[in-house]
Amino acid sequence: MSKLPDASGKLSSEFELIARLSAGIRLSRRTILGAGDDCAIVSRPRGRTLFTIDSLVENVHFDLRWGTAQALGARALAVNLSDIAAMGGRPTACVVNLAVREGIAARTLERIYAGLRNAARQASTDIVGGNITRARELSITIAMLGEVGSAAMRRDTARPGDEIFVTGTLGDAALGWRILAGKLKARGNAKKDRASRKYLVERFLRPQARLYPGQRLAALRPAPAAIDVSDGFMQDLGHILERSGVGAEIDASRIPVSPAYRALMGGNLVHALTGGEDYELIFCARPGHSESELSRRLRVGVRRIGAIVRGKRVKVIGASAPTIAGWDQLRSRG
Amino acid sequence: MSKLPDASGKLSSEFELIARLSAGIRLSRRTILGAGDDCAIVSRPRGRTLFTIDSLVENVHFDLRWGTAQALGARALAVNLSDIAAMGGRPTACVVNLAVREGIAARTLERIYAGLRNAARQASTDIVGGNITRARELSITIAMLGEVGSAAMRRDTARPGDEIFVTGTLGDAALGWRILAGKLKARGNAKKDRASRKYLVERFLRPQARLYPGQRLAALRPAPAAIDVSDGFMQDLGHILERSGVGAEIDASRIPVSPAYRALMGGNLVHALTGGEDYELIFCARPGHSESELSRRLRVGVRRIGAIVRGKRVKVIGASAPTIAGWDQLRSRG
Repeated sequence: MSKLPDASGKLSSEFELIARLSAGIRLSRRTILGAGDDCAIVSRPRGRTLFTIDSLVENVHFDLRWGTAQALGARALAVNLSDIAAMGGRPTACVVNLAVREGIAARTLERIYAGLRNAARQASTDIVGGNITRARELSITIAMLGEVGSAAMRRDTARPGDEIFVTGTLGDAALGWRILAGKLKARGNAKKDRASRKYLVERFLRPQARLYPGQRLAALRPAPAAIDVSDGFMQDLGHILERSGVGAEIDASRIPVSPAYRALMGGNLVHALTGGEDYELIFCARPGHSESELSRRLRVGVRRIGAIVRGKRVKVIGASAPTIAGWDQLRSRG
Repeated sequence: MSKLPDASGKLSSEFELIARLSAGIRLSRRTILGAGDDCAIVSRPRGRTLFTIDSLVENVHFDLRWGTAQALGARALAVNLSDIAAMGGRPTACVVNLAVREGIAARTLERIYAGLRNAARQASTDIVGGNITRARELSITIAMLGEVGSAAMRRDTARPGDEIFVTGTLGDAALGWRILAGKLKARGNAKKDRASRKYLVERFLRPQARLYPGQRLAALRPAPAAIDVSDGFMQDLGHILERSGVGAEIDASRIPVSPAYRALMGGNLVHALTGGEDYELIFCARPGHSESELSRRLRVGVRRIGAIVRGKRVKVIGASAPTIAGWDQLRSRG
């Protein structure tokens, strides 16, 4: 149709494409009106509403050659689900903005959406709307709604004396990214080495939001302070400390790393401490919870790695400082 | 901090920047927790929740040289507000994703945010969260929540016999964009011509969402079918027709255009019929409403421009077909 071809920013076949991408999306009864109108309409949430937005940009967060388009779609959803998880919420609905550059086949978009749809279904989340625009690079921006009771987990409620825990293992995604980007030398071709590399790459390409652990944690009284590890353990812990006005003492020897991480890095913890995109949860709970009790309750390994202290300093013990990039910078906040 | 500098996609000073941009944002009591955590927390809406997402991309939707950064921020909000207006809702909260390329000064981002904040305050909408990522081009993607009663205006409820109305005037923004892009020859340098051009350019750079008219329209029983004019009158009307399974008869001689439009285009309606970004409302109401009654009720000029008919065809009367690009294509849907 002859209309502001440059100012509208629409792909010529945008509407057909949205219709095709939205086809086959099953919606819950919460959704009164899904994609295809000016807005979606969703019913009132059961509790308070969580609201977040996150974006994956080509050549910044991903490279289409690194994995399948389906995995990319699922990952774009996972980074948002992880924000809901860090608050202890249940995801309910999301809207998707696709910015599409020339050279991206409709089939690639369909695969991205297939991955999105599948991940949304697994998380009981409705994809209720979308927008497609032209751009010079591919990006996927998702805004997500969730529900949470009155006791959401926040960053600003950590108190001196709280014990600091982390779920799963840290640094895997950072190593996976380095392997994909050719920044980490492959160390041997034995079957075991290949398996390690594959594990790490999958941790980067297919992150899983800790939704169930987050919901179980939010049920503790008081609800722990919490954050997800998206920017890196030290930086994300720093957000809790800053918002809560406290410091921390971290025992680096207790930082949980995977066998694959150890196989590649030995005792070097730099990526476990500073690498991002693991989407594990850091939480700060009042004393009295054991690792085994929490691991059982959250259905994921939980490690106690330190404690909240007065002041603004972060003290890292149990590791040689030179191996920990960023440690000095964080410490200098004090 | 030394951490995945390429995979994280964060600006080095992102957190300081978000803090600075979020400073001075006043929030309503609806917002329990604003920017600075993994998610915002907002209280339960009074009615159903509207949810939408839209994006402005550099060199697709805007050029930084065309207007102020403040106006750009306000415009990014307006395109979302207009989606809420088209449903008859009240905007309540939004989250903002800024993708920032190299060469964009922090000051530019601050001005964009200042425009956003100001527009949000005028619309009683809270900016409750944000995300900043690196990219190769600047883009502003906003997801917005609104509230609406049970009678939201939708695209799929038009019925044969409905009268089709439009608010304000059409085609101004399309001409404004053409003037800015150098695609429209300036016609004289008289004071009146300059005033016309300025009016049209402002209509493009500073669109106003029709929130109040939308809310008043949604109070009609039954609520009209409605859409906002973002892609162009013919195309947006087409969305109503397609979703409602009906056709339309349009009297082109009744299409409302501004004096500035007429000064530049004479009787040529092509941009009024097919140009986008006016953010006026098209609505389809049961017979019985006069233009004067509706104009008074909505506090904006309202023009009856046609009627919904059976079938899938769009018949345009009152104008010579060759002047109306897109008309044949739309008609061929039948």
